[in-house]
Amino acid sequence: MSTKTDQAIDEAARRTRNWGRWGEDDERGTLNFATPERIVAAARLVRTGRVFPLAIPFDQQGPQSGLHGRFNPIHGMAFDGGDQLPLPHGIGFADDTVFMPLQCATQWDALSHCFDRGRMYNGRDAREVSSLGARHNGIEKVAGCFAGRGVLLDVARSKGLDDLAPGTAIGEADLEGCITAQGDSARVGTGDFVLVRTGQMGRCLREGWGGFAGGDAPGLSFGTADWLHRKELAAIATDTWGMEVRPNELEDSFQPLHQVLLPNMGLHIGEIFDLEALATDCASDGVYEFFFVAPPLPITGAVGSPINPYAIK
Amino acid sequence: MSTKTDQAIDEAARRTRNWGRWGEDDERGTLNFATPERIVAAARLVRTGRVFPLAIPFDQQGPQSGLHGRFNPIHGMAFDGGDQLPLPHGIGFADDTVFMPLQCATQWDALSHCFDRGRMYNGRDAREVSSLGARHNGIEKVAGCFAGRGVLLDVARSKGLDDLAPGTAIGEADLEGCITAQGDSARVGTGDFVLVRTGQMGRCLREGWGGFAGGDAPGLSFGTADWLHRKELAAIATDTWGMEVRPNELEDSFQPLHQVLLPNMGLHIGEIFDLEALATDCASDGVYEFFFVAPPLPITGAVGSPINPYAIK
Amino acid sequence: MSTKTDQAIDEAARRTRNWGRWGEDDERGTLNFATPERIVAAARLVRTGRVFPLAIPFDQQGPQSGLHGRFNPIHGMAFDGGDQLPLPHGIGFADDTVFMPLQCATQWDALSHCFDRGRMYNGRDAREVSSLGARHNGIEKVAGCFAGRGVLLDVARSKGLDDLAPGTAIGEADLEGCITAQGDSARVGTGDFVLVRTGQMGRCLREGWGGFAGGDAPGLSFGTADWLHRKELAAIATDTWGMEVRPNELEDSFQPLHQVLLPNMGLHIGEIFDLEALATDCASDGVYEFFFVAPPLPITGAVGSPINPYAIK
Amino acid sequence: MSTKTDQAIDEAARRTRNWGRWGEDDERGTLNFATPERIVAAARLVRTGRVFPLAIPFDQQGPQSGLHGRFNPIHGMAFDGGDQLPLPHGIGFADDTVFMPLQCATQWDALSHCFDRGRMYNGRDAREVSSLGARHNGIEKVAGCFAGRGVLLDVARSKGLDDLAPGTAIGEADLEGCITAQGDSARVGTGDFVLVRTGQMGRCLREGWGGFAGGDAPGLSFGTADWLHRKELAAIATDTWGMEVRPNELEDSFQPLHQVLLPNMGLHIGEIFDLEALATDCASDGVYEFFFVAPPLPITGAVGSPINPYAIK
Repeated sequence: MSTKTDQAIDEAARRTRNWGRWGEDDERGTLNFATPERIVAAARLVRTGRVFPLAIPFDQQGPQSGLHGRFNPIHGMAFDGGDQLPLPHGIGFADDTVFMPLQCATQWDALSHCFDRGRMYNGRDAREVSSLGARHNGIEKVAGCFAGRGVLLDVARSKGLDDLAPGTAIGEADLEGCITAQGDSARVGTGDFVLVRTGQMGRCLREGWGGFAGGDAPGLSFGTADWLHRKELAAIATDTWGMEVRPNELEDSFQPLHQVLLPNMGLHIGEIFDLEALATDCASDGVYEFFFVAPPLPITGAVGSPINPYAIK
Repeated sequence: MSTKTDQAIDEAARRTRNWGRWGEDDERGTLNFATPERIVAAARLVRTGRVFPLAIPFDQQGPQSGLHGRFNPIHGMAFDGGDQLPLPHGIGFADDTVFMPLQCATQWDALSHCFDRGRMYNGRDAREVSSLGARHNGIEKVAGCFAGRGVLLDVARSKGLDDLAPGTAIGEADLEGCITAQGDSARVGTGDFVLVRTGQMGRCLREGWGGFAGGDAPGLSFGTADWLHRKELAAIATDTWGMEVRPNELEDSFQPLHQVLLPNMGLHIGEIFDLEALATDCASDGVYEFFFVAPPLPITGAVGSPINPYAIK
Repeated sequence: MSTKTDQAIDEAARRTRNWGRWGEDDERGTLNFATPERIVAAARLVRTGRVFPLAIPFDQQGPQSGLHGRFNPIHGMAFDGGDQLPLPHGIGFADDTVFMPLQCATQWDALSHCFDRGRMYNGRDAREVSSLGARHNGIEKVAGCFAGRGVLLDVARSKGLDDLAPGTAIGEADLEGCITAQGDSARVGTGDFVLVRTGQMGRCLREGWGGFAGGDAPGLSFGTADWLHRKELAAIATDTWGMEVRPNELEDSFQPLHQVLLPNMGLHIGEIFDLEALATDCASDGVYEFFFVAPPLPITGAVGSPINPYAIK
Repeated sequence: MSTKTDQAIDEAARRTRNWGRWGEDDERGTLNFATPERIVAAARLVRTGRVFPLAIPFDQQGPQSGLHGRFNPIHGMAFDGGDQLPLPHGIGFADDTVFMPLQCATQWDALSHCFDRGRMYNGRDAREVSSLGARHNGIEKVAGCFAGRGVLLDVARSKGLDDLAPGTAIGEADLEGCITAQGDSARVGTGDFVLVRTGQMGRCLREGWGGFAGGDAPGLSFGTADWLHRKELAAIATDTWGMEVRPNELEDSFQPLHQVLLPNMGLHIGEIFDLEALATDCASDGVYEFFFVAPPLPITGAVGSPINPYAIK
């Protein structure tokens, strides 16, 4: 273990920790920033009625390769259109099932997904997340909290690139530069859901997933923790598998920005968002803000949820 | 088989059939009514920023009892907070999985869920829904289509009841009476998502599920097919397991309204919606309309999807 | 906690503990008693070639009711005989899947299934059984160990009963009485696989499972731990869900005989064996010994396995 | 379609078809050859008590790669040794689950696994295998039928090779040559379970699975159908994923020997057997016969079963 890395994580965690900020019983974290007033204002951003669903297809052609025990969704038919069920008057039915890791495709990380030295958000013991599920901080505790103003930060495009190279760390200057380049509609403030586009998914959709899941990736720099904290976002999401840059910047570390954001800041993280069509549209009309609605399935005790977020312009 | 029942289904199917209405290749059915213009107008209904998530909890305490092969969601931890994963610097993670019928809880029925004499929406062969999934009319084909104006028709409350008794058929007069009682905000028109409350779920949440899943229920009368067609709804949903009244009204029939609405009219059906909190709020402020967003998971070839719909007032 | 119960468990554990008996690295426990020589002798017991498969059907009509998170096997077709797969020359195929708890039906409990004060067989830490599976004492470590002499002890019949009442504790005297009643072929010795019939399953097969899974049951008395130790059995099995008598005899205890047998003695336990046809045959010819072969599926890191044991006479 | 291929399959099917041979209701096929008398004789082959379990490990490192929708077993813990369950007196438990294709690892193909022009064994309609499972010819119908004399035919070793190259067809002459080379104990007769070793699995265990599952492979020639019929085997098995040679010999065909053996002859097929340790032992003592016991899990309506066969010498 590197003392320097420990120290960097520890200091960032202390600077951005929101434990107790919304009460000792709080399980929502920064989603508390998405207040009713802000939701009303955000709904006014619907100007043309174009809906952009941001989920990738949930199927066997997905990005997972078995790493970290994650696999692509397994869909099965309980009965189908070829079965001759004994039903009257010519009616027929089909039913189906799915088996999937909640982290396999487009998803929210719940606040129970990541721990910092045995603790999760609001100081709770990591062991509250047992085989029986998460006693606290489960995704069902924020079932109704994912609506508000969304902002796309198309960092790749703002740099004139189709996609950022794996290993590219997106720092505070990059985010601010992107906002400046994109103009007024891209200003980021309290209670916003910010979607950062690296373009990596676009490349994968064109060329194949390759090592997308768990592999090297462009992503947020560890150094953005303070910016995320200062901006008082409701949640953050990217078009990569794991939000932060990989390989990680701190020596010998594994996803240190997760370690700061989820258990300390209480910031929900969205991953594997397909931002391609939305980004094209935003580049075309110059409007980077929209109404954002991304309801999780309230699976009791779950540490995440598959989602199909809507950006509505 | 009863000739009379066959005839009733056949005639209703012919009167309300939308095959070809939006082109031979269409897989969206009446969701085509939810146009961008209507979405813009619907977003203006967000006035207070209150969000009502309409999903029931997805867990082993759900309504399923094994009937029709349906069971409650099975959640498992891939790794949890008690595991001692070999990760550096005090970081820890939890991941999880779910196995569930797509029809087990709050859900959309896709247009490939039901067949009429071997055909599904737009005249396609039911055998296109094989063990490999639905080649057409799968839920992924309408991934971005579930946003628009929502209207709650609280039929139980409009009759001064906590809940309608199982077997109570809700007819056109009941729906129109409810609209009249609820006032202007409850007027129903083209492209609306209409949520009908019978109160049965409220009773189950208080008293236990009992025979909720697959059992007797209040619900829409077979006779409402023409009303639903005339109103040009985007989709219909209820707080019961199967939308229509059970036992079914036509002799020897099984879910005949499904047989008309899904394969013929191309109307998506929502089931097992928890409308209790929303209904209380609407009764309190007299406003029965809202922005409705209910994104399905785009599971490729699926004949339905679990959802957590948001009604945003 | 009752000091008396603690003391009883602790003393029995110490009297019967086999840690180190077959070396510090051993993961087989008493299966070590089933030596090649004994297997040769046991094979000689095949005299008529009648095979008795001892598994119950693995399907949705099984005994599980959701207690302890256990459910019945969920079988699904990946593709079936009605699908029109694009295969040449008239060939067709069907494939299928199963999702099941490894403890849902006829099964072996692995030595990693049960812990005594944080320890499992041979002194290993219970935390070696994490969400990633059992690092030691998993069922795959004894993949080839379940063959040898089998003996049926039909305790119910030896008492002139169809089945023992729930709550009936089978003590050492009952076992010895049964052996005496059944005669020479029922003598029990080192390396034997002993199958104890209470008749409870026979009653359930006639009358329905009711509370079979996890409910009150006849079964081995806590007091038989020493007899089982002295007899040097390879493994023990019963026709009940949990081998030992329920309610348990020791005050405030839960499955204390498991706590002695699995983590301390290292004795594998078989449960939910269907002994009905075998028992009828043994009663008819007076021969209670046979060749017993019950291979587990070598699921890596599993704490048990579904099985279909064969008693071959 | 090639008329020549059609004709070859059709003629072999007619020459070897066993429909009606054991009655119109029969669902056992050639397992009927494994009579009680032969089981008694086979048990006498247990001479040293060495048990060879023939299953590969059931885990994520298995051979499946997603082809044909097959994946490796997914093992999950329902609760584990790190959970702090509220149990008295220091007892703890772990439970687990598995989700797997029944065809993913060492397995029996049931007679409902393969169809010939819409028919399965004994003339039954393929559509009897619907999403609800196999109404006839399911694996549960032969739950107690897999015991008898086993014979290893180590074709690779008989040719002085570690393993046969993919695409190598093993013909009747190869089988007879192997028997002659191996000597008296390898003579094959009515009711035997014959295990054919190509060595391909040995190579995969040394070098990685690569394209093992569904890929090119050595295996039985289409021409062996008559030999298998004449020999009146109980069942056949190999150490490859699909028993017969791949690419298939007949033009434009897919697994034509399956098409003859399963639906016409009624011969169960075993696949992905690990014969390495057994083969080494047989080469060392020159004894190629043994008692063979391979109980399937009686999963109701299943078209196959995972197994852990025992060869007991």
